[in-house]
Formats: sequence, C-alpha cells, structure tokens
Amino acid sequence: MSAELEGLHEECGLFGVWGHPDAARITYFGLHALQHRGQEGAGIVSNENGHLHGHRDLGLLAQVFNDDKKIDRLKGNAAIGHVRYATSGSGSVDNIQPFLFRFFDGDVALAHNGNLTNGRQLRRELEADGGIYHSNSDTEVLMHLIRRSDKLTLIEQLKDALNTVHGGFAYLLMKNDCMIGALDPNGFRPLSLGQMTNGAYVLASETCALDIVGAKLVRNIEPGELIIVNDDGYTIEKYTDKTQKAICSMEFIYFARPDSDIYGVNVHSARKRAGARLAQEAPVDADMVIGVPNSSLSAAAGYAEESGLPNEMGLVKNQYVARTFIQPTQELREQGVRMKLSAVRGVVEGKRVIVIDDSIVRGTTSRRIVQLLREAGAAEVHMRIASPPLRYPCYYGIDISRTSELIAAHKSVQEICEFIGADSLAYLSIDGLVETVGLNADAPYGGLCVAYFNGDYPTSLGDYEEEFLASITEEDKKRLTEFARDSSQYYGNEYTHYLMEKSK
Amino acid sequence: MSAELEGLHEECGLFGVWGHPDAARITYFGLHALQHRGQEGAGIVSNENGHLHGHRDLGLLAQVFNDDKKIDRLKGNAAIGHVRYATSGSGSVDNIQPFLFRFFDGDVALAHNGNLTNGRQLRRELEADGGIYHSNSDTEVLMHLIRRSDKLTLIEQLKDALNTVHGGFAYLLMKNDCMIGALDPNGFRPLSLGQMTNGAYVLASETCALDIVGAKLVRNIEPGELIIVNDDGYTIEKYTDKTQKAICSMEFIYFARPDSDIYGVNVHSARKRAGARLAQEAPVDADMVIGVPNSSLSAAAGYAEESGLPNEMGLVKNQYVARTFIQPTQELREQGVRMKLSAVRGVVEGKRVIVIDDSIVRGTTSRRIVQLLREAGAAEVHMRIASPPLRYPCYYGIDISRTSELIAAHKSVQEICEFIGADSLAYLSIDGLVETVGLNADAPYGGLCVAYFNGDYPTSLGDYEEEFLASITEEDKKRLTEFARDSSQYYGNEYTHYLMEKSK
Amino acid sequence: MSAELEGLHEECGLFGVWGHPDAARITYFGLHALQHRGQEGAGIVSNENGHLHGHRDLGLLAQVFNDDKKIDRLKGNAAIGHVRYATSGSGSVDNIQPFLFRFFDGDVALAHNGNLTNGRQLRRELEADGGIYHSNSDTEVLMHLIRRSDKLTLIEQLKDALNTVHGGFAYLLMKNDCMIGALDPNGFRPLSLGQMTNGAYVLASETCALDIVGAKLVRNIEPGELIIVNDDGYTIEKYTDKTQKAICSMEFIYFARPDSDIYGVNVHSARKRAGARLAQEAPVDADMVIGVPNSSLSAAAGYAEESGLPNEMGLVKNQYVARTFIQPTQELREQGVRMKLSAVRGVVEGKRVIVIDDSIVRGTTSRRIVQLLREAGAAEVHMRIASPPLRYPCYYGIDISRTSELIAAHKSVQEICEFIGADSLAYLSIDGLVETVGLNADAPYGGLCVAYFNGDYPTSLGDYEEEFLASITEEDKKRLTEFARDSSQYYGNEYTHYLMEKSK
Amino acid sequence: MSAELEGLHEECGLFGVWGHPDAARITYFGLHALQHRGQEGAGIVSNENGHLHGHRDLGLLAQVFNDDKKIDRLKGNAAIGHVRYATSGSGSVDNIQPFLFRFFDGDVALAHNGNLTNGRQLRRELEADGGIYHSNSDTEVLMHLIRRSDKLTLIEQLKDALNTVHGGFAYLLMKNDCMIGALDPNGFRPLSLGQMTNGAYVLASETCALDIVGAKLVRNIEPGELIIVNDDGYTIEKYTDKTQKAICSMEFIYFARPDSDIYGVNVHSARKRAGARLAQEAPVDADMVIGVPNSSLSAAAGYAEESGLPNEMGLVKNQYVARTFIQPTQELREQGVRMKLSAVRGVVEGKRVIVIDDSIVRGTTSRRIVQLLREAGAAEVHMRIASPPLRYPCYYGIDISRTSELIAAHKSVQEICEFIGADSLAYLSIDGLVETVGLNADAPYGGLCVAYFNGDYPTSLGDYEEEFLASITEEDKKRLTEFARDSSQYYGNEYTHYLMEKSK
Repeated sequence: MSAELEGLHEECGLFGVWGHPDAARITYFGLHALQHRGQEGAGIVSNENGHLHGHRDLGLLAQVFNDDKKIDRLKGNAAIGHVRYATSGSGSVDNIQPFLFRFFDGDVALAHNGNLTNGRQLRRELEADGGIYHSNSDTEVLMHLIRRSDKLTLIEQLKDALNTVHGGFAYLLMKNDCMIGALDPNGFRPLSLGQMTNGAYVLASETCALDIVGAKLVRNIEPGELIIVNDDGYTIEKYTDKTQKAICSMEFIYFARPDSDIYGVNVHSARKRAGARLAQEAPVDADMVIGVPNSSLSAAAGYAEESGLPNEMGLVKNQYVARTFIQPTQELREQGVRMKLSAVRGVVEGKRVIVIDDSIVRGTTSRRIVQLLREAGAAEVHMRIASPPLRYPCYYGIDISRTSELIAAHKSVQEICEFIGADSLAYLSIDGLVETVGLNADAPYGGLCVAYFNGDYPTSLGDYEEEFLASITEEDKKRLTEFARDSSQYYGNEYTHYLMEKSK
Repeated sequence: MSAELEGLHEECGLFGVWGHPDAARITYFGLHALQHRGQEGAGIVSNENGHLHGHRDLGLLAQVFNDDKKIDRLKGNAAIGHVRYATSGSGSVDNIQPFLFRFFDGDVALAHNGNLTNGRQLRRELEADGGIYHSNSDTEVLMHLIRRSDKLTLIEQLKDALNTVHGGFAYLLMKNDCMIGALDPNGFRPLSLGQMTNGAYVLASETCALDIVGAKLVRNIEPGELIIVNDDGYTIEKYTDKTQKAICSMEFIYFARPDSDIYGVNVHSARKRAGARLAQEAPVDADMVIGVPNSSLSAAAGYAEESGLPNEMGLVKNQYVARTFIQPTQELREQGVRMKLSAVRGVVEGKRVIVIDDSIVRGTTSRRIVQLLREAGAAEVHMRIASPPLRYPCYYGIDISRTSELIAAHKSVQEICEFIGADSLAYLSIDGLVETVGLNADAPYGGLCVAYFNGDYPTSLGDYEEEFLASITEEDKKRLTEFARDSSQYYGNEYTHYLMEKSK
Repeated sequence: MSAELEGLHEECGLFGVWGHPDAARITYFGLHALQHRGQEGAGIVSNENGHLHGHRDLGLLAQVFNDDKKIDRLKGNAAIGHVRYATSGSGSVDNIQPFLFRFFDGDVALAHNGNLTNGRQLRRELEADGGIYHSNSDTEVLMHLIRRSDKLTLIEQLKDALNTVHGGFAYLLMKNDCMIGALDPNGFRPLSLGQMTNGAYVLASETCALDIVGAKLVRNIEPGELIIVNDDGYTIEKYTDKTQKAICSMEFIYFARPDSDIYGVNVHSARKRAGARLAQEAPVDADMVIGVPNSSLSAAAGYAEESGLPNEMGLVKNQYVARTFIQPTQELREQGVRMKLSAVRGVVEGKRVIVIDDSIVRGTTSRRIVQLLREAGAAEVHMRIASPPLRYPCYYGIDISRTSELIAAHKSVQEICEFIGADSLAYLSIDGLVETVGLNADAPYGGLCVAYFNGDYPTSLGDYEEEFLASITEEDKKRLTEFARDSSQYYGNEYTHYLMEKSK
Repeated sequence: MSAELEGLHEECGLFGVWGHPDAARITYFGLHALQHRGQEGAGIVSNENGHLHGHRDLGLLAQVFNDDKKIDRLKGNAAIGHVRYATSGSGSVDNIQPFLFRFFDGDVALAHNGNLTNGRQLRRELEADGGIYHSNSDTEVLMHLIRRSDKLTLIEQLKDALNTVHGGFAYLLMKNDCMIGALDPNGFRPLSLGQMTNGAYVLASETCALDIVGAKLVRNIEPGELIIVNDDGYTIEKYTDKTQKAICSMEFIYFARPDSDIYGVNVHSARKRAGARLAQEAPVDADMVIGVPNSSLSAAAGYAEESGLPNEMGLVKNQYVARTFIQPTQELREQGVRMKLSAVRGVVEGKRVIVIDDSIVRGTTSRRIVQLLREAGAAEVHMRIASPPLRYPCYYGIDISRTSELIAAHKSVQEICEFIGADSLAYLSIDGLVETVGLNADAPYGGLCVAYFNGDYPTSLGDYEEEFLASITEEDKKRLTEFARDSSQYYGNEYTHYLMEKSK
C-alpha cells in the first residue's frame, strides 16, 4: 500500500496472442489482468492478414476501450497490447504503446516493459544520424536500431538491436507474419508463454493474464531469449549467452498479482513466507496483526500465523477510489476527509497492533497509517515491513529514480520509526527476502535483483552512472566498495570497479 | 461474493450534511464510502439559502460527478445524496434520487433506502385521486401523502405520512430550513448521526461514511424516530411507539462495509465471530481455509483461527473489473476466459481446501468457484457458508424477490452440495448468527430480521402477501404455521395468523 | 441575427409520427429540421405496443442522441419528440420534454410548445389540492388537469383541460393507442399534419419537418382543434368555438425556417416581400445592400431587388460557432477577437451600405454590427429593420419577458439610431408587416399577433397582467387606452378594458 | 455545395501566432475561422519558453478542444495549429497535425497544407536509409530531410529540404526560438501574415483567420518564400528563384471563405463576378435564380443581378447537419427522408428556375438537386456551374485523385445534362474564370492553377505521372499534346514533353 500510495510504479504490462479469431478481445482481457502494472494508458494493435490496426489512449484500459466498436475495429487473428504507467510530465498519447510503424515493406508494432540504461546515449547517437522521435520514450530506439542494422531479416536485425540496448527490457513485436517476444540478459521483468484451449499462443508479463484467458503455462521466457510465434508454432532462440538471472525483487514484494507465478514461485506464497520470516526476525508482544490492504495482506497472514496472533481487518481500502475526479480540498483534508484508507475503530480501539506493510518509500503514507490507527484508538502501533529498506534507485523499469525521495537513503531505521510515529519498526533482511522467495537460481541473491536495497546493480549503469555517483554519500561509496571487495555475491559492476579504483 | 455475483443487491445508500460550506463535496465523499450500497445511479441535492439545486444520473458516483464543475454548481451549506441499485427494467434517470419537488412554498428533496410493503396499494389510491408519477419508484408516494395531509407543518404532515407507509424505510428530506431523517418502526436499515470537526451534522446509512468525512458518531437513529437538523442543532421525535427492532441480518452478513458499526457492533468482528462459530458447528479435516473475496475474508479469518488451519489466498478477485464495457462472448467463456475471479494454482494445487462464502443465492457462483478450484488442482473442496440457507424473499429493500431464484428454497443442503459439486457443505445456524452478531436487543432474534432464513417476517406483507403465499410449498405453510404456534420468537404476523386459521 | 444573438428564443419544436416501423428515427429527423426552435434540450418518447420508452437530455439533438443505440432502444411504431430552449436558471434535465407519466392504467407522454397565461395560478391551485411537480414548467399542469377531470375518456378529460388552460399552446400527447395534437384558440404556434409515402401520419411544428421526412402536407391544424391519430387514420374535433386566429408574427419575421409554409404562406417569400416593402417605406441612397446572416438574407434580397442595388455578402457568420466550449476572454474581445460575425473588408471598404436585419432587441448586437462595418471601412452604414419596433413582452412562448430589455420600449427610433451609431435607421410599419405576410385571415391584423409591437394582446394576460401594467409607462397606458377605444382591430382585452375604466 | 457533398475536400488549414500571452487560445480562434478547410482532425502545439506542448485528436476543433483545460494546458507565448481533412482509410490520430518531434537539442513542431508530388519516392528513399514513420502522411518526410541535411542551422537545413520536396505545400514550423512559414514555388495554397493589436504576428491560411483575431494583414507570403518570426519581428527569405504563381483556382471557386482575400482579391466578389460572367456566357429565359447554399450564393447573386431576375431561396441547407450520428437508412432515404438539403415548394412551385452551383464532381448531387426541385413543383430546371468542367485530378492538396470519379472526364456537357436531368446545363469558361478572378499575375492563366480543367499542370507529376497517363484517354493525350504545342500559356511540363515525344 505504501508503495502504491507513494508512487512506486511499475512501468508496463505486455500481452500478445497469435492464432485466435477474436485476438483483440483476448488481448483486452489479458491486459485487464495486467491493469495493476500500468494505469495511465493502454493500447492494442491487431494483425488482419498482415495489415496492422491500432488504438491507444491515455486512461485505464476500460476507458480507452469504452465501446465494443473500438475492439471490433481491431480485426485479425493476432494482436499485442500494452498497459503503461506514464512517468510525470509525459502524459501524452504519443507515449502510449504499442507503437505502430508504417514501412513500405509492411507495418511493425512494438511494445516495451522495462527501462534501458543506455537509451539516452543511443537516442542521441541515432538522432545525430538523422533519427526522428515522436515520443519521449526509449522504445523507439529499438526500432531505429533494427532499421539501421545491415542484416537481411527482421529477426537478425532484431538480434543486433537487442545486443546493442542495455538494461531491463521485455519486448513484444508484431509484424505481418509473426509475433516476437524478447527478454533482456538478466530477465528483470517476467514474460511467460501460454497456450489457449484452441491452440493459440499467448505471451504475457504475468501468468495471471494466462489464467484469465484460460491459457495453460507452456514455459517462462528465460534471460537472453527471443521467441517467435507464427502459424507454424513457436521457436526460441538465444541472442546472447552472457546472461545472469536477476529478476526484480519488487515483483515479488509488491508489483505482481498474488495469483501469478514467477519462474514457478507463487507470489502470494512468497509474500506469506516473507511475513512469517519477519515474525521470526522481528517479533513483538501485541494483540493483533493488521495488513495494509491490498498488497500486504499475504504477508500479514504469514506474520499472524507464525506469531499465533489474530489477523484482523483494522484498515479498509475504499475499492471505488480509482479514477474519481472529485478530490478533497486541503481544508477538507485537515478536517479529516479521507478517500483511500480508513482505520476501523471497532477493531483496533484499545489494542496493541502490529501493522504489516510491503515497503516504505517516502514514509509519509506510513506516518498517515500510524496516525489513522492512533486516532481510531490503537494503544500501540508496531510497524513491520515485509522487505528490506529501499535505499537506491531502480534503473530497470520501476519509477524510483531519485534517492532523495527514499527515506531509508537518509535515515536510520530508528529515525524512520520516529518520523512515522510508530512504537517500533523493523524491516525484513535481504537474506530473509532471498530465502523466502526461494528462486534458488545459480546467480547472486538466488537470481533476485536487490540493488534498491544494497546498491549492487547487476548491470553497468550507463546513462545513469554519473547521476548515481553524485546522489550517494561518501559513506555509501565506501560501503559499496567494501561490499564489492568482500561479498561473494558481488556482481562485478563497473561503477563499483570505479569506486574500488578510486578508493585505492 | 456469491451474494454479489448472484445479484443480491442492496437498494440504496443515504448521506446528508447540514452546516458545512462545502456541503455537496462532503456529500460526494460520504456517498463514495457508500458506493457498495448502490452502483447504478447517484444524485446530490444541495441547499443554497433555501433554494435547492440537484444533479443525478445513471452510473457510478464517479461517473455521475465526473467533473468538479458538477459539484461546484451545487452550492450551499447543506446537501443530501443517494446511491442506488436499479432493479431491472427501470434503468431510467427518472428513477434516480434524490427526487426534487418544486412547490410555490419552496422546494423539497427526498431520498429513500428500503422498500414499502404497501407502496403499490398507496400508489394506486393516490393515482385514483389525481396523483401523477414520473418514476416507477415507491418513493414519490411519501411526498403525495405529505402534500395531502391536512396537518399544518411539514413535520406533522410527514408524521402522518410515515404512519401510513409500511415496510422498510430510511428517508432523508431536505427543505429550505432543515434536513430530516426518518426510520421505519423496525429499523430494517441503519441510519446514524455524526458530527464533523466544524460542528456540521451528518446523517448516513453507515458509519464508514462518517469516518470518511472525519465525523464522530453522535447516535444511531432508532426505529420509529424522526430527526430534524437545522441551524439550531438537532431534535429527535418519535412518530410512533409501536416499534420493534428487526435490523436486516444481511447488513451484517454481506452488505455493510466491514469497517462500519451497526448499533455498536463492528461488522468485520461480527463476521469473524460467525466464521469462528462456523468452525465449531461444521469442522472439517483439511489443509487450508480460503475466503471468497472480498466479503467473506473476515469470516475466513475467523474460521482459520478457530480451526488452527492456515488462511490462504486461493481465490483472487480482479479489482478493476467494475464498469468494463468489453465482455467475453459465450464462445470465449467456454474457452475459459474469465473476468472476475481466479483460482490460484500455486496455492491450492494438491490441497484439501475449505472455502468460506457469505451466502448461496442461486448456487451457480458456488458451483463455478468449486469448479475453478478443482481445475486449479485442489484435492478436496469443502464449502462453508457463514450464514443460514436463504429460503424466502426480502420485502424491505434487498433485491431477493422470488423464492424461485433461491436454491435453498427447493433443495436440501445435501442436494445443494451435489449441485455445486463440493465434497461437503455446511451453513451457519440461525442461533449461531444471532449469537455471533450479538445485538442482544429486546426483540425476537435479538433484534435481527432473519425472515429470509425462516419466513418469520416482522411486519405484515401487504402488497406481497398473496404472491408470497402462492410461492411457498404446502410443507412450508405447515412448517410456518407450526413455527408460529410454537416459537417463543414468533412475530405474530398476519399471514401466519391466516395460515393458522386455514390449518385449523 | 440580432434576434438570435440577443436572446430572442423560441421555446420549442414538436414532432410526432404514427404508423412507421422506424418511428423514433423518423422523429429524430423531424426534430433535426426543427433544431432552430430549441437548442438546449431534446427528447423522444416511442410507443412499443402501448408501452412507452423515452430518452431526453440537455444539449443539441445530435448530442442527446449521439449514438445509434439510443435511437434503437426507442422501439415502436409511433413516437413524439421535442426540442426545447431552456429559459435561464432552469437548465435541468427535469424540464426536458416529452414528459413521461406512469399510471396503473398505462403510460402517457406529453410535449408542449408555447406558454400559458394562467399556468402559475393553475399550478398553485392544483398544488393546494396535493399536486406534485418535478419540473418548473407549465406543462405538467395539463396532465394534472386531465387526471382530475371527472370525464371518462382521456379525450374528454383532455377537452376539459384544454378549456381550462389559457395562452399559447400546441400540445402533443402519446398514449398506448393514439397520438393527439391540440392547438390553442388563437393558433399562436403553427402545427401541421402530413403523411409519409408509407401512409404514416406526422404532426410537426413546421412544414420543413414534413419535407425532411418526405411527408406531404395534409392540412394545418386550426385554432381550437384537437387531432387524434390512431391505426384507423385521423379525426379532428373542436374543443371550443371561441377561436380567433392570431399567429405569432415573429414566426414569419425570425423563428420559422424560410422553407416552411405557415397557413399556406412561404416564410422566405414573406420575408422577401417585407424587405421590398421596407425599400419602399424607407429608401436610402447607397452602394449596396447587406443582409445580416442568416435570418435576414431573404429580406435583404427583397430590399436589393426593389431598390435596384446590388445585394452583397458584407457580413459573414461563422457556421461552426455552435457549441464551442472555448470563448474569448474579455481581454481578447477588446483586442478584436470575434467568433460569430465578421465584416468583409474586401466588400464594404469605402462603400455606403444598407444593412438589413430582422429585428432589434437590446440594440447591442446592432451596435456591434455597425462598428464591425465601420472598422472594415464602410463609408456609411444605414440600418433597416424588416419588422416594427419591439416594445412589449410576449406571453405566448417567446422569451421576451421584460420590457426593460427592449430598447424600443424606452427609446425613440432616432435615439436608437444614435445608440447603435448608424447613419440612419428605419423600421417596417405594422401595416407593412401585415400586408406583406398576407395571411388575410378574418381577424384583427389579418390573423397575426402583433402584440410585441403595439401592446394589443389577443388574450387576457392572466398571471402576467399585474406585472405588465407595472412595467409600462403612463404614456403607454394612455396610448393603449386610446388605441383600444379607436382601433377597428382592437381585441377587446381585459387589461385594456381595465385601462379604459381607469381612464374614465 | 456539389463540391462539398461530393467529397471535394481541402486537406488543411494552418494558423500560427508568435508573441501573445494567450497564444493557444488565439490559435484556437484562428483555426475556428479555418474549420471549413478540414473537419476530421485538429491540433495545437504551444511554445512555453522553448518547451513545446501539444494536443491533437480526431474530430471538429470544438470536439478536440471541448474543455477550457485543454487550452489552458497549452501554455506559452507562441503556438501553431492545424485543421485537417483525413483522406479515407487514414482516420488515425497518428496522422493529425501538428507533428511534434522531440530532439536532444529541442522540440520541433510541423504542420502542412498541400500535397507533395515526390513524397512517396522521398519516403521510400529515406526509409531505405533507416527512416521511421509513425504516420501515413507526407509531412514527416520534410523533418527527415531537415535532420539529414549537413547544413548547420535549422533555417539552412530547411532550405535544403524545401528544395528537395516538390508539389504543393504551405508549412508551419515551431521551434524553441522562432516560428517559420514556407510556401512552395507555385504558391498553390494561400498563406498570409498579419499583426494583432498587441504586436503579435500571425500566419494563417486565409485572411478570415486574421480577421477573427483582430489582426491586420501585413503581407501575403509569395511563392518560394520563407518567413521567420521571432521576438525581434519577422524576416523573409527566398529559398528558390524558380517560382511561378499558380494559385489553386478551387480556392476561389469553392474552398476559401467568401470573406477572405487571396492575394488581394476578395473571394465573394470574385464569385459574384463569375456568376455575372456566367449570365453573359449562358443566359436562359426563366423566372428566378437559385443558389445552392452556401458556397454558390455569391455566384447566384451575380447571375441574378446581371440577368435582372429575382434571386430566390429555393434550396435550404440544414445548418445543424454537421456531426450528426444518426443517419437515414437506405429504406428511409427511398421514402424521401433527407438531411442536408431541402427544396422550398412555396418558392419554386410552377416556376422556371436557374440553379447556380459551384461545380459538378460526380454528378449525383446535381441530379438530386434537380430531382428535389422538380418534386417541389419547379416547371423548368436550368443548371449553371460557376466554374469550368472538372476533368483531371489535383495533386497539390485537393482530394480529387481519380479521373474515374469525375463525370466531366467521361461525358460531354450534353451527356451530363441528361444524367442530371436538367432542362439545360452550362459551365463557365476557363477564360471567364481567369478574367473574373482577375489576379493578373505575370504567369499562365493570370497566376491561377487550372489543371483540373485542362490538364495543364504547373509542375512535374513525379510519383503520380504513371498513374495520370494511365488514367486518361488517347484522345485526351492527343489533345494535351496539341495544347502543349500550341498554347501560349503552356507550362512546359514533363509529361506533356513526354506526350509530345511520343506523338512524333
């Protein structure tokens, strides 16, 4: 909840289908299950015998497609779609995907989930060479790279391009005769292949989107893979061998739907195990456990069961709050008018409560939650966070771009506890997270990216390196250097090399 | 959830405020918290120095007021609002409330939650006398009765009218110099008075609407009471002494928000106690407890804690499903495309699960839930319902009008279990419900209306008596007659008298 | 144009059809041709085997029915529709017609064009007897009178009611088995019967609406007549013999479409004759004639032909101006930003122009037109008005309710000329108007109502008498008294009697 | 009217302003005056201290900007805007202009009125070099050429690009520090510079857009010119010396608003002179003259005055017809249901009428007009067209792309007369057109492009040459060859060279 209320946004969800007569409608339902991954814009491109039709706009999926006609016009047996969280300042329809490109030799559509670390540099280089952009997004870069490759087929051109871009990316492309998916060498974002009962193949960011269309999981796309789906079925190729699994741990902690499985691990179960581990790591003598709805309910159940305390509904989220145009004025807010979250006096009055939340970003939401509970009569409020402290930005597709916004980048746990006004505060350890997710991949942190917690980024930072080094403290640099020197899990990243060099 | 998916709808929510400069906006937020009570239409009437302004339309509140201007135009220091569930066939804006009447001696607005048992007869009588109706609703009847009373003040006219209408009703009225609330002699629907930090008084169907505007509960309105709020404060009068508390038990079981208190009983806590009682009444050897989201999560927590089993998220509800225009075709449905509810394979696969639901109406949703869980690999599915079997219609404001739609009216528990395909099925007992709600009022069933479970209606059935008698079996009639003869809680209702007479 | 820009609004247009399988769509097209009669709201009620369905809303017809589905839902073989100009302050959907009333013995729809002179008094009386109103409009009064009549059939009840209401009215009613039209005893508003090629009958406010649906005129409805259309054809009855034709002269001057015929007189031709007569009555030495678009183009053509001067397009109206949301700020207006009307420099520069307009209401638009032409270089600007000076309110359905708004009520022609800044100004005489319209009915003024020009109202003023007497000057009263005494065309109205009595 | 009803569409209108604090709103009003030039889409890009903001969408201007907020968001002191007619099949928002390009060195916006004759070839070449397109439009090509130029400043790069594109174009560009306008070497489309009272400069496709914002004409942009407007004022440069004025004659005949002046010639006056000349060239003995509204009213006035016949309103256009969603079914059309144009029986019955229209495209509208008039009782219908027969496509920005659609390409005047069912038919001569427009430029046809009448195109046909030669008859080819050989006005075009070579 804190993550949600404090602007920690996933940037995208992808869905595509090949081989279904109602492809655009199927894509609509698939995107519906992925709506939590992006609520600012949506689009679908369909493939009618090689000719692509598109519709995209700002808004929730149900607003963009608010009329059956808009789906009916997207004829064809294949389609790809995208839901998007628009970063501030770019709320223009030009940025909504899939992008649709018109060439003499055919149309191509492209959608992207993730963020490139060398997007700015590539964009600048391509621009110097005459490249023209309609959007602010990195995504157009890939198409420019494809068109400038001297390879002869789109697949070969795409491989060139995929080896040129760095960072986090899951791509979906649609051309006249195939649908293509591609994943970055670290697999920061999930991408899964499923098959519908009629044989159609679907590609989706999360397995919950397979479930909604009645598709069975065929296989997860692995880091560095390229999948081509056409009328003959699917083929998978590797465009690089330099892969190392580092899936975004925030997918498990907050972004993904609890009913999704990521590389075989159910998200709800991982969260519940994290809650139980948190109860072991940071027990407290209290009367009840309360989860902050909705994302922290699994962790709260785990904490409650492990601790033997009752799990109560002490906080309620207003389920109709999305997209209301009418907002409380500042004056009304001061009078106590609240829209999103209410504390339940009948439950918490006079009680010592343990509140479980998924994360703390700025701390303001946690402070409000503590205040709400105290106003409703809670005797004690103990905050427990089912993930480690967020200290560093993410450069692979989550909207945490500045350390200045992260309270844990500047304050100790004790200081944060004071800031939010809780009686006590504790976070889950990184080891606790890694073990309870339990991916057990042959990679640092068992295959999780935990860079926002410890600064150990799995890739070079590219465009962001300078900015990153400027944003962190000397102490941080020293710590990171030592960490890079000593840790068995160290990624061997350039900036840590740089820091190690400097520290000599 | 079954209640929700199977069309068990509350018909309305009411909110009013007197004495706040931003009255219409306050009312908007109050209605927002009551959105679950009616999602087909909404309206607000404000009072600007005695002149009333209104806006109402079909749709969710956020759709009806999709622009700040629509609120800004509703100027004034007082306002009343209404959210409505439109029964089928009446989806016309003419039926959306509050109704606004224009008289030479001033405007009057009126909103209603409930259903009259003599509405049709009164309407017919008034029409024979020249009464003219713009809507299909009972609500206009009250205004006709008021205007035809020979009393001299609106309050006295209203008392006359309130003694003429029968059934379930909470009314809100607004006139130039006061806001009025009134509750039927049984108090079927809740109505509470609160006070904001600036001193403004609010009246609301549920206390969660007081919370959202930062108001403190002052007092619940009691059966047979009339409350008048004006610039001097509030006064409460009784318009009848023949009162007997019989609050709708479905408010506790399903309708009301878990964070609301009804006559001092917190709804979440009542549901959790019901779940625990159900675990005692109908235990089962299994691996986990699953609540059907969202309304059955409290009961599931109670069952899990009492039974010592883990409480898991084995079913997920798509939170963005409301108001989507695009629906799966029948063909897609058969291919497994589903929008509302998903089972989580990663959680239930190979497990013996106990599913807790709030109620069973037609049984089709329960059957689908069992099927979903089995398809996701559940080894056993045991259904437990946190309320008694629904056997009879409600005539006081819930949309269960025909016994033919109620599976428990025609089938035994064992037959229902077979129909839904569960491994076992059990319901909470009426005693269990009455005791775990725990109102303890000096009235039959502790002050709860349980007529849909046992046919013991707290009032005469009026317009509906003939229809009711025609709809029930001979066996039912015999049972009801015996029950009326023997039960200490018997309401002494006319139709049971009639049955007793006939049975002699 | 001045009439249009200065808020001289017709209040309504009516259209109905009986006997066409696509009745609602036919009604849509009919209303489309009548859109000029009311642009603030529109509605249609259809009759599907006796069951009435309605849709109405604020806005232009094309906005209210912005979707084929909205028409498709209005099934049935008959329909009536209404377009409405909403007087200020009453912009609520509750006032949009047709009104739809629900009775136990069937639905009735009602639409009204005109204004009652005893509406307020009747409303008050009916209210005292328990009548309840949802709108501010007079129209509901008729339905109350019908329902309170002790006659046995709706037709007889309606006759009673029509003899009770006074003023200007054309009514359309729809019930299960017939469509009814009725006209007031003076025939202030036009109403015509036509027949489509398939045999269906249509009733419409203007013949242009017959033309648009390919219907041939059968007959005009005469003052005091009632027409009943059903599956057997149509029958016409008189509900009163006290009739005297006094059709609104503003229909010829400004409201009606030029392609309509009113009682056999083509509107364009009447306007052209008025322009020619104006050239005779008030010639001027100039270079060209300019009509203010669009309503004054016919009169300008007549003036030009009669005077032998060229008829030029010196003023252009922006045809897309309707319904723009973006308006110039006051500051931009001062900088010369104009939306509606432009003068054409290339045409008028250095020229002596005669501007023909339909009327002057407040004078501000005329002043602006003169200013526009001077800024565009016109050497002289002579204003000629193709109707007599507007001095008195209309109580029969045009929105001129206060003499204070009428510049000619307070200023002489010379003073008006100075106010608008023209080089000369002249109006058409009343005789000129009566003769060029040429209805030649056996009634004062040849069957035209000219009360706004000379204060000679064809009916008693009822609710408005007091207000009227208070608004006019002593000089006016004296003049009207003398006029009433001497004129051969005098209507013998109550207020002039009153004045004559007083003046004795 | 025939032009309008038969799909003869101008493709665009341009407006820009530099130096006004309310620049986007000014642009809105300017575009409003140009709405007739493009009704399928609209957009505005504003310049806020060098940062460009845009909004564009499908629909009329008033639909695209249906909210003050949409204008308010476009902050800044400068703006350019565009209204567009979308050719069939390309109704996507991606094609709506201005296009907004994002570069590292700043944003650039671009809008275009006209059509390139080498657009397809350039697009293909640029694509082969890696160019990527988001739209189907030619317009992106210019930006690609600019960015690939090796010149150092945008102005020099633009000059290169302007010398590379061929055909008809008026461009508006906006960058951080200036607004730029450019016109093709023939000046097919008008473009004028004006100045507002506050000193701000505006560029607009027609002078009527200067008038609406209170701007005075400063100067028309001449063929081959480039105008740069910035905070220091404006400068004009020539990017080529090879210019030859050939302004589109359809601007005078039909497209431009009558109140616009093109190169000093008022459009209404030119049309009136054309009508008078037509009366001389093709007189007829009749009772009245009727103009087809709205575009032929000026010509009709000229014809009437010259012939001494009365000018009557025998046809009426429904002014509210734009943007109605409800259309007559084919069945209703056959029953005579018509939306757009009505004949006025009261005017034409029994009369011999001369109908003046601007042009005949397919002939179907003229046939309908003749039929309407005959059904309304006209005794004779003589059609007179105030322009020469349309025989050839336009490649410079009017949507007449196929000769197969042009009735005069295949039929003689006598055959057309029979097709439309008139009693007689005559067209204006090319000489009559050239002389009555009276531009008198030192160029063939006095500076008018008359290629659609005689096939004499002022430029090479580029992409279209092959298609053109395939579409015309052998007879045509022969005629064109002779014409090219003999005419003193011959343009010396490539395809006529080609034909002359072939004919040797």
